[in-house]
Amino acid sequence: MVKKAPRRTAQRILESTLELFNRFGEPNVSTTRIAAELGISPGNLYYHYPAKDALINRLQQNCDAELQEALARAEAAGDLEGAAELVRALMALVWRYRFLYRDLNDLLSKSRDFEARLQTMLRTQEAALRVLLRRLAASGQLRLDEEEAGMLARNMVVLLSFWLNYEYAGDPREALEPEHAPLALARGTAHILQLLTPHVRPTDRDSWDNWQTQPFTRATERRAESTALPH
Amino acid sequence: MVKKAPRRTAQRILESTLELFNRFGEPNVSTTRIAAELGISPGNLYYHYPAKDALINRLQQNCDAELQEALARAEAAGDLEGAAELVRALMALVWRYRFLYRDLNDLLSKSRDFEARLQTMLRTQEAALRVLLRRLAASGQLRLDEEEAGMLARNMVVLLSFWLNYEYAGDPREALEPEHAPLALARGTAHILQLLTPHVRPTDRDSWDNWQTQPFTRATERRAESTALPH
Repeated sequence: MVKKAPRRTAQRILESTLELFNRFGEPNVSTTRIAAELGISPGNLYYHYPAKDALINRLQQNCDAELQEALARAEAAGDLEGAAELVRALMALVWRYRFLYRDLNDLLSKSRDFEARLQTMLRTQEAALRVLLRRLAASGQLRLDEEEAGMLARNMVVLLSFWLNYEYAGDPREALEPEHAPLALARGTAHILQLLTPHVRPTDRDSWDNWQTQPFTRATERRAESTALPH
Repeated sequence: MVKKAPRRTAQRILESTLELFNRFGEPNVSTTRIAAELGISPGNLYYHYPAKDALINRLQQNCDAELQEALARAEAAGDLEGAAELVRALMALVWRYRFLYRDLNDLLSKSRDFEARLQTMLRTQEAALRVLLRRLAASGQLRLDEEEAGMLARNMVVLLSFWLNYEYAGDPREALEPEHAPLALARGTAHILQLLTPHVRPTDRDSWDNWQTQPFTRATERRAESTALPH
């Protein structure tokens, strides 16, 4: 039992850091503040994460791992409902790690590791969306050609990555607070799915309109708002 | 003639500031550096702009004025080619004032005036695009309903505002350098116009594909790269 303590502390530090970064922005949160929030000594914090960069990298790795999971789940999906579900899951993931996107340029300027991982994450997402769109085109559920699938996939990635920055610009003091999750998530998802709407085959249009505006399940919302990280 | 000197200096200060902000990012450029770049004394700089905020606000006001001009020109436009031309002009404007978008969250945290003006600019753009899309729908050139026009207009604004941040994430050291203007402008415009493609009536599709991928004219490119400001 004693051996588990360090892992639990490391986990608590990460969860607290994610919450503080999301609330106040990564540049405004020092390791001293994280230690104070947890009621542990700075020395104890440094024992687990020797610098703030280690915390940022670990959170980005976790975000990446959750992204891969969401994309893997969607690989099985071969229908429009699955596509809508994937966009919903990706939007929730961006919300959960929103400090990464809000403070993106600052983070990019600090670490080449961060930059390389971010670029891989953007490329992986785009490739997975492109494959999914092409599969839906091949089965006749979407009407688009290869080139359109490529451009749409990139537009979806740009909207996913920056939707919350747009919400933030409209209301910097409120937009990214936890209680705004339902509105921001639903609005972002509906707008991103709108890109596919004109390509949906007519017989699926009614169902599509429902999936596009479906509210987030309480489970997805709770997960997006939660700072609990996978062990 | 002597009376004109202060105005010319104020103008030179602004142009130099825009160039430095675009190259190094607003948070990394001090007024001391701007004065040094121009070979004037800090006192002379302060005579014209008493603080860095005054420079930022003035540049944002100029950006806003150029935005209003571009939107007013487009009001006359009632066809698809005019819509493509407007998106091209808006993308060039974002390039020209790219520091505003790259350092957006930092600027938002500093000034309520900046925030209010930005929000007005985003709303004005969205409203103008919505009106244009509805007019093209009414004349049968686009096939979309009122609700789709609203969502498309917002998606266009989000892509316009954050396209360069996406390019920046892919290549932070090069993407926003002047020599990348042709590529970034053409790619952003093509992707934004892609949102309209499935709505374009079939008889216009060939012309539309041409407008969508048309290279920027040298004049537009020069203007986007230029830091010369209207007097």
